[in-house]
Amino acid sequence: MKLYDYEGAPSPRRVRIFVAEKGMDIPTVQVDLAAKSQHDPDFAKVNPHRTVPVLELDDGTRLTNTAGICTYLEALHPEPALLGRTPEEKGLIAQWEWRMENDGYMAVGESFRNKAKGFVNHALPGPVEYAQIPELIDRGLRRTQQFFQFLDDVLAEREFIAGDRYSMADITTLVTIDFAKWMKQTLPESAVHARRWYDAVNARPSARA
Amino acid sequence: MKLYDYEGAPSPRRVRIFVAEKGMDIPTVQVDLAAKSQHDPDFAKVNPHRTVPVLELDDGTRLTNTAGICTYLEALHPEPALLGRTPEEKGLIAQWEWRMENDGYMAVGESFRNKAKGFVNHALPGPVEYAQIPELIDRGLRRTQQFFQFLDDVLAEREFIAGDRYSMADITTLVTIDFAKWMKQTLPESAVHARRWYDAVNARPSARA
Repeated sequence: MKLYDYEGAPSPRRVRIFVAEKGMDIPTVQVDLAAKSQHDPDFAKVNPHRTVPVLELDDGTRLTNTAGICTYLEALHPEPALLGRTPEEKGLIAQWEWRMENDGYMAVGESFRNKAKGFVNHALPGPVEYAQIPELIDRGLRRTQQFFQFLDDVLAEREFIAGDRYSMADITTLVTIDFAKWMKQTLPESAVHARRWYDAVNARPSARA
Repeated sequence: MKLYDYEGAPSPRRVRIFVAEKGMDIPTVQVDLAAKSQHDPDFAKVNPHRTVPVLELDDGTRLTNTAGICTYLEALHPEPALLGRTPEEKGLIAQWEWRMENDGYMAVGESFRNKAKGFVNHALPGPVEYAQIPELIDRGLRRTQQFFQFLDDVLAEREFIAGDRYSMADITTLVTIDFAKWMKQTLPESAVHARRWYDAVNARPSARA
């Protein structure tokens, strides 16, 4: 196996943390997004969506997004479980992973990609050009603030996002919080439950991945 | 178990088709989105995100989105498998499900929610008001057309979205194609592979769900 990665980007970091939590060691190939290397013809053949992470299996099969990669790795190495053990745990983790990605990660991405100079005409990932829409900067920032409040409410009720165990949903949320700093958005002082949780998950060795 | 549902909406239809393919029979409670019943205080207690589908388990646990519900039902009733059997199949189906939802379903939703009169100030699902952004109508329509072309390319290579078996990714894509008709977007005549696939999946009894 090998992982197409870029150390400076939030999206492949979700996979790197997942791999670290599994205790696996997968060789990486760095794709320099800062130099727009994802648009090089050679990489476009690896992944026509022109994004990282991509996991290439030994038979040449390529998994081209985080959902595919983490689902595969969990099935291959079930322990420690990051996507749940019982049907109810699996359902709740999938639910929270979806929620955190869509209401958190995507909200930050919306503000960032519509603002950053490097994404002019690439407001959406992929090969097709889409112009930045200034109104989405503010919408993304508003959604991010709503997300912080929601997160604090969730974590007032339990230790981790999806229950009493660390899971994929915690990984996505940790990466979201750190990604939000790029837009100068941080958890408010009043979000004591979210801050308690952040300190705990950020102290795990995997968070350095 | 019971499923909070609305027969007129695309989102819960993904779950209804999934349930039908499993051969299960789950009682439903209709939440009339046309009458904005998802914003009733009683339903806001069932799901603070104010969306359907919601699956309520016998112990009172509620799964509040499609990802959570289908992951739970698959773990509870593994056959017929709709999320894969082997690690590689599971990874590929998760990858394609994510891709089809994000590049297809979300694209149609973007054009629809930013245009429809019923969604003024509700351009995003949930309790928080977000204004419609007219530029997103055109962007969503452009993305939908790109998606149709992409879909045809994918289905030129294999029978179903994620390989040689019907899966969750086919369900999400079928619902996306039908949802796109609300915006008068249909598969082009030239998309012969996508049309062959559509006719096949639409002929399954589950498509009537």
